Amino acid sequence: MTDYGSPIMDRRLRITDYRIVCLAGGVGGAKLAAGLAQLVPPPNLTIIVNTGDDFQHLGLTVCPDLDTVMYTLAGVANPETGWGRAGESWRTMEAVTQLGGPDWFRLGDLDLATHLTRAQLLGEGQTLTAVTRHLCTHLYIQPAILPMSDQPAPTMIESTDGRILPFQTWFVRERWQPPVNNIILPNDVKATHAIIRALETADIVIIAPSNPFVSIDPILNVYPIRALLEDVPQVVTAVSPIIGGQAVKGPAAKMMQEMGMEVSATAVAAYYGDLIDLFIYDRQDEGAFEGAGDAVAMDTMMGDGDGRLRVAKDVLQATLDFLS
Amino acid sequence: MTDYGSPIMDRRLRITDYRIVCLAGGVGGAKLAAGLAQLVPPPNLTIIVNTGDDFQHLGLTVCPDLDTVMYTLAGVANPETGWGRAGESWRTMEAVTQLGGPDWFRLGDLDLATHLTRAQLLGEGQTLTAVTRHLCTHLYIQPAILPMSDQPAPTMIESTDGRILPFQTWFVRERWQPPVNNIILPNDVKATHAIIRALETADIVIIAPSNPFVSIDPILNVYPIRALLEDVPQVVTAVSPIIGGQAVKGPAAKMMQEMGMEVSATAVAAYYGDLIDLFIYDRQDEGAFEGAGDAVAMDTMMGDGDGRLRVAKDVLQATLDFLS
Repeated sequence: MTDYGSPIMDRRLRITDYRIVCLAGGVGGAKLAAGLAQLVPPPNLTIIVNTGDDFQHLGLTVCPDLDTVMYTLAGVANPETGWGRAGESWRTMEAVTQLGGPDWFRLGDLDLATHLTRAQLLGEGQTLTAVTRHLCTHLYIQPAILPMSDQPAPTMIESTDGRILPFQTWFVRERWQPPVNNIILPNDVKATHAIIRALETADIVIIAPSNPFVSIDPILNVYPIRALLEDVPQVVTAVSPIIGGQAVKGPAAKMMQEMGMEVSATAVAAYYGDLIDLFIYDRQDEGAFEGAGDAVAMDTMMGDGDGRLRVAKDVLQATLDFLS
Repeated sequence: MTDYGSPIMDRRLRITDYRIVCLAGGVGGAKLAAGLAQLVPPPNLTIIVNTGDDFQHLGLTVCPDLDTVMYTLAGVANPETGWGRAGESWRTMEAVTQLGGPDWFRLGDLDLATHLTRAQLLGEGQTLTAVTRHLCTHLYIQPAILPMSDQPAPTMIESTDGRILPFQTWFVRERWQPPVNNIILPNDVKATHAIIRALETADIVIIAPSNPFVSIDPILNVYPIRALLEDVPQVVTAVSPIIGGQAVKGPAAKMMQEMGMEVSATAVAAYYGDLIDLFIYDRQDEGAFEGAGDAVAMDTMMGDGDGRLRVAKDVLQATLDFLS
């Protein structure tokens, strides 16, 4: 039996009655989604995942954020790396190196199975949405995990030296070091029917503490996701990925600085602006926060176990409080 | 120092002076090619390999005969299976099974590295010929191994129940059980410049003891390989894959029977007909052989080590005897 948590259970309208959509990128999004999956009945939870990081590598379609979310919800994620599977081995990758193949982006033996199965099903003409559903079924994942689109939607990074790099080239190969001048998102990417249906019926949309520029913006850029967020749900709650003036993981803070923004929860709230109804930021920033709209401070750091459940519960509770 | 063998060394024109091309399919072709590679200086040896068995699987281009020849020449072939690499492991394949991916065609962890590197390089726009050269370089293989074409050239099997199956579906998935009515080879497949150059300058062409119908015919079907064999080399020698009325390995004998042919070395010689100048068959068939053209009986069984060298030496010696 799932622990729905006492504060929420006490309310007349229970959390189990709400249809919830979570927009997620990589690690932070995956952790919050895993917490939500412990609280929300599977039919009422949809996780929309950024696929702007996807790219072709070793002949395979690599979907880093989708896989991080899948592996995290399946309980098979590698807790140390933030990507890939636990108990991973590297026999194939070592042989690729010996054969003079590219090894800057590492796919472990277990992780490769996901990629090969995906490649097979995509090659048979299935959509990425259908392939993801197939993989989730075999990983015993119950909530719906939806790629933001079935079309390729590559995020490109324009560095200050004028180079335009595919996201993973910038992020992994160049270890997110080239300073970011601009992020280029593709035109004309369309959402799937599954996403439109999920957002049209959503009561609550939660924007996970993922990178606003390269995890959340690519999702919002998919037509008509931004418009649906503006029109449909009762409430859109965003969780700050910036804690104490720093990113928990990854390049969010560095990017903000390079793009001339203040590195703060306040700046993130301002960036989301009218799109969101409620902003959740960390208690560490309670003194400094100067956001204009509704906002709640709480402990937002998620570890590997109970932290996810606690943050998910508190975020839902704050959202229900806002609604009531 | 390579052992060039005394009978050959005694001749005025040494074997090291001849340019030799070997047409090869899978295991039998790979073994003879490995024997030849011990006798012939690398610049004078070219192995043209059947790619009619190639297919797309798990998103990858699978080239069974090319890989068997490569692995055998590199000394990393699995001696038990006749395909794949020695010391193989199956971690990825087991995970593919768990993810509901197809597992009827098994690619081991080491073998996958070949396929991923090939997929990467093909994806970058390299030809199969260039990719094969890359792989051979990293496997320390000196003779040229050339795919019969850079174009896809799928061999299809028409079974007596009217189904038309891609070769690997028939061969592996259905364990070559559906009776063969006909073999369908593609039109308009063209040879590469590398192949045309090799055949135009070849002194000797050796047709390995591979399946005449699904290993050698697909090569001869590539334009203009058959015409070049008829016109250019001083001598074309074929080695019988049928010994004592049986195939050493694989479906050659079964196919001959199903297509209404006699299962014998004589029938193989007749099938090659005028294309070849010299036919080599096994001593086991010495009494029964009734071929019309020049033919030599010898021990043609190749084991894992010295047998390959012995057969390669004897085949070359018989060919030089024919020439002198």
